[in-house]
Amino acid sequence: MMNYIFELQYAMDTFYFLVCGALVMWMAAGFAMLESGLVRSKNTTEILTKNFSLFAIASVMYMIVGYDIMYGGGWFLNGTVGPADAAAVLAASAESGFADMGEYSGASDFFFQVVFVATAMSIVSGAVAERMKLWAFLAFAVVMTGVIYPMQGGWTWNGNSVFGMFELNYSDYAGSGIVHMAGAAAALAGVLVLGPRKGKYGAKGEINAIPGANLPLATLGTFILWMGWFGFNGGSTLKLGGIDVANEVANVFVNTNMAASGGAIAALIVSKLLFKKADLTMLLNGALAGLVAITAGPQWSSALVATLIGAVGGVLVVFSILTLDKLKIDDPVGAISVHGVVGIWGVMAVCFSGASFMGQLGGLLTIFVWVFVTSLIVWFILKAIMGIRVTEEEEYDGVDMAECGLHAYPEFTNK
Amino acid sequence: MMNYIFELQYAMDTFYFLVCGALVMWMAAGFAMLESGLVRSKNTTEILTKNFSLFAIASVMYMIVGYDIMYGGGWFLNGTVGPADAAAVLAASAESGFADMGEYSGASDFFFQVVFVATAMSIVSGAVAERMKLWAFLAFAVVMTGVIYPMQGGWTWNGNSVFGMFELNYSDYAGSGIVHMAGAAAALAGVLVLGPRKGKYGAKGEINAIPGANLPLATLGTFILWMGWFGFNGGSTLKLGGIDVANEVANVFVNTNMAASGGAIAALIVSKLLFKKADLTMLLNGALAGLVAITAGPQWSSALVATLIGAVGGVLVVFSILTLDKLKIDDPVGAISVHGVVGIWGVMAVCFSGASFMGQLGGLLTIFVWVFVTSLIVWFILKAIMGIRVTEEEEYDGVDMAECGLHAYPEFTNK
Amino acid sequence: MMNYIFELQYAMDTFYFLVCGALVMWMAAGFAMLESGLVRSKNTTEILTKNFSLFAIASVMYMIVGYDIMYGGGWFLNGTVGPADAAAVLAASAESGFADMGEYSGASDFFFQVVFVATAMSIVSGAVAERMKLWAFLAFAVVMTGVIYPMQGGWTWNGNSVFGMFELNYSDYAGSGIVHMAGAAAALAGVLVLGPRKGKYGAKGEINAIPGANLPLATLGTFILWMGWFGFNGGSTLKLGGIDVANEVANVFVNTNMAASGGAIAALIVSKLLFKKADLTMLLNGALAGLVAITAGPQWSSALVATLIGAVGGVLVVFSILTLDKLKIDDPVGAISVHGVVGIWGVMAVCFSGASFMGQLGGLLTIFVWVFVTSLIVWFILKAIMGIRVTEEEEYDGVDMAECGLHAYPEFTNK
Repeated sequence: MMNYIFELQYAMDTFYFLVCGALVMWMAAGFAMLESGLVRSKNTTEILTKNFSLFAIASVMYMIVGYDIMYGGGWFLNGTVGPADAAAVLAASAESGFADMGEYSGASDFFFQVVFVATAMSIVSGAVAERMKLWAFLAFAVVMTGVIYPMQGGWTWNGNSVFGMFELNYSDYAGSGIVHMAGAAAALAGVLVLGPRKGKYGAKGEINAIPGANLPLATLGTFILWMGWFGFNGGSTLKLGGIDVANEVANVFVNTNMAASGGAIAALIVSKLLFKKADLTMLLNGALAGLVAITAGPQWSSALVATLIGAVGGVLVVFSILTLDKLKIDDPVGAISVHGVVGIWGVMAVCFSGASFMGQLGGLLTIFVWVFVTSLIVWFILKAIMGIRVTEEEEYDGVDMAECGLHAYPEFTNK
Repeated sequence: MMNYIFELQYAMDTFYFLVCGALVMWMAAGFAMLESGLVRSKNTTEILTKNFSLFAIASVMYMIVGYDIMYGGGWFLNGTVGPADAAAVLAASAESGFADMGEYSGASDFFFQVVFVATAMSIVSGAVAERMKLWAFLAFAVVMTGVIYPMQGGWTWNGNSVFGMFELNYSDYAGSGIVHMAGAAAALAGVLVLGPRKGKYGAKGEINAIPGANLPLATLGTFILWMGWFGFNGGSTLKLGGIDVANEVANVFVNTNMAASGGAIAALIVSKLLFKKADLTMLLNGALAGLVAITAGPQWSSALVATLIGAVGGVLVVFSILTLDKLKIDDPVGAISVHGVVGIWGVMAVCFSGASFMGQLGGLLTIFVWVFVTSLIVWFILKAIMGIRVTEEEEYDGVDMAECGLHAYPEFTNK
Repeated sequence: MMNYIFELQYAMDTFYFLVCGALVMWMAAGFAMLESGLVRSKNTTEILTKNFSLFAIASVMYMIVGYDIMYGGGWFLNGTVGPADAAAVLAASAESGFADMGEYSGASDFFFQVVFVATAMSIVSGAVAERMKLWAFLAFAVVMTGVIYPMQGGWTWNGNSVFGMFELNYSDYAGSGIVHMAGAAAALAGVLVLGPRKGKYGAKGEINAIPGANLPLATLGTFILWMGWFGFNGGSTLKLGGIDVANEVANVFVNTNMAASGGAIAALIVSKLLFKKADLTMLLNGALAGLVAITAGPQWSSALVATLIGAVGGVLVVFSILTLDKLKIDDPVGAISVHGVVGIWGVMAVCFSGASFMGQLGGLLTIFVWVFVTSLIVWFILKAIMGIRVTEEEEYDGVDMAECGLHAYPEFTNK
């Protein structure tokens, strides 16, 4: 009888993982729409190409080397696909008196993990938009998704020792630091090597707004990300079966939703106070900031506290975007602020649930130093080998024709 | 052994609720795309801002007061998050001999309910588009989602006595009346106080078509709503476990799909007969009408009958849109017709399954009077305090720059 | 006790089917966005109308006759909705000692099957875009979804004898041939009867590129299809319960994702080599080709092999699109190449898992001959009765105003 129950639980947990993974995969569409809505029309085809290609590259690289680096075992290239058969699983579980009802298909774990890698990489594409060479970006994606991300993912979620030197005491439920801040660190390195877009910052210190071409797309992208985030945070319980776990999963869904709401409202109010207008792009970034903020600890707090954690993220993101512009760090979509600055806040907010302050800080520092330094090295190598920035003329004309040979909206603009 | 089974069932039902809730949350994106596709480009940023903000506001207000008003218990602000732990749940269930296999996480119930509130509010934003002040709308959203909606939701779904005076004998499975007609009643009140858009109705009684700027977006929005509606109706079984319930859920999915199809085909044919053209916006509204029509009773009928119920909705919506225009009730997206007029049809159609005619009528009247009158009062108060309509000049220039400071499509139009 | 377990399993498998079905329904939105992004703005409203209407028509026709033709039993029109009640199901299962734990609601099976029909039909709309009469297309949809598709679906998935003459020995897990190649065969017949768009091929053999109006939409559509395909392939296990099945489902999700990635990367590289540009439309078609390629056998291979099967599809699709253009077969979105040519590859690739080469070939031939010949007949009949091609003037002006009376983007273009 226990065998039947165990089989059912195994199937349900596997299904749960796959549904959450599909939602996270859907976030790739969210990033693509968000970013293509926030750039100018002349650079839209290229940002779509980047976002679409990076997902494919992330999937392949993580399959070939990334998953092994992060979790070991040589799972895929061992030649076997997935876990042992039912008889073996049941025999092992029966031996332990079915003590562990938390088993699920190994392939579903890979599926859930692989879409996370793509999320981290998607963060980079927005920050370097409108001026980076397509193929330099794709080359970076190969290294980021194959090596840089998996290394730090192994130190944190898998508890690997950092270069055999020390172990982290770091708590990050679904990856405010491991996914979002890591992506932002790679983006920051790229932006620093790349420099700002022509015309963004004037000779006398003016900061010129460069409006996005298609705000409905940007809004759609944010809704997609919000929806996908239920899978991102919800799936990070790693199992579903059982009353306590199901309650935790439900809390994660509620808190994820509330943090996004809190972030959106806070950013709306702040932008109304600062600019006298209800700035839609700040509203969208506020919701995303709320989501990033709660990601490190969506399970422990009440819904009200989650709302407040998100709201702090929403306030932070507005000021961070303004500050980066003063520092002439040109991030067309605000990715470094949303995922980096607010990612740090999210990780530190876990201290309210009892996590070690120094442990959180140490984890953040380790991730940041590793990702930022290695990214910087890769960007410099790419710059030396193939160049990472398009020519001034290409930038002026838009990268779409230069890189992709296609206008995104050939009939809507006069270009 | 029963403990294990019970735990599994609890987890599955919770998961089912969360998936359905995520689909309903996705409907918010559907409304945003539908409405932003059907307004002019100069009013697009603002309608996006309204739709995005109202979801955040609905989430927060329903958490703070709405859920308690509707279902009682002070669930959230009591300080506890969610239900008792596994041991307590199991002990209680064992005492009853596991008679009730229908338990699930309280947080998942909140999650499912909260996204419904946002749906009701989304209906309003379309009807008042292109002329209402943003902040007046958001203020209305606070009252609607915090008080007006939850009050009538308590009378119906929770069986509360109406002001301690009488109880309703009203059957409305997923809310043709409670959600859709209620939203339309609030919208109608707003439209009456607000008046039509400049230029919509000529001095000599002409009705001028004001075409939407982006029909692919409107189509996408309708597809999103169609998909999300599987969660809206499907989740309203409130549980999944067990053969009979699972059969019911499957019928709900089938009937929801068939009613939408019936509504679409009926509206397509009617518009071809009336206008000699296959009017895409009527087609989309026909599908939505089919969905609204089946929502009050998606579980009882055969697929064929569901198709017919939807088809009647599709016919009704076309004539309703034409009639409202003759009455100079200006509803840019047809929301009052789709959700209000067809919502009434949906509720009354439940009589075919044996529901009391007077009970259905009484429920509709109670909901309508409550929502319409309270909404009217709130709209009048807002008009007195802050004004609810933009200036003529702002309306002419488009509300985007006045309210949000951003064009939705800065490169595509000459404005 | 077994009763409880069986009830749970039944509910879970039903839910699994419904979730997968909802994902496949979502593919309809994907096709609509993909195709409306790849046509010119003057033909956009009409392609949206086609895609939306065909889904409704497919649902109704499959309910009325298609499902019965394919699977028999007169399920719907018998007057009963769905399967027997819990007591009957349990009694039957208990009799067999619960040997078959694979039961689920019959309505969920209908739901899953009906959305497949719409997929097959969606393939046609893209290929005949920009020149076919709307109502001729819809009339074809009635026959295709009611009869042509279900006949061959019965021969393959239901094992029916082909006209009582022979039975197929054909393996096609989720329908590379049964759904995708079949749709492409109907499309090819239509394109041949219809002829190419004016101006596509010059008098001296020039092939003129006709760029799509909205590439973000096309990209969104492809992401939607990618996501929906998890349901398309994943649901085709037809059940979930049990360890071995759950492992298979997880492998299907992984392989589906990897094949899409492989196809995308391969098409990107080939287009860069051939055209010196990263052609976004080829990238998108490459991913779709990868998905079509793996659909016939997503369960048997390792992730690496799935990637390679997808990559071959990605290479094939680029050359097929170029070849069809040389043959003056004008397919505006590349549907015949993606679903037809690559569908054939997908079916034949199952031979690597041990399927009979002649069996696969025989199945393909049977499907192709049946669908192509019957479609050709229907297209000719429609041509004789009502005409299938718009007038030259209508084609020049765009079919939107002629057929639908609405511009898709009235403010963005000067038309």
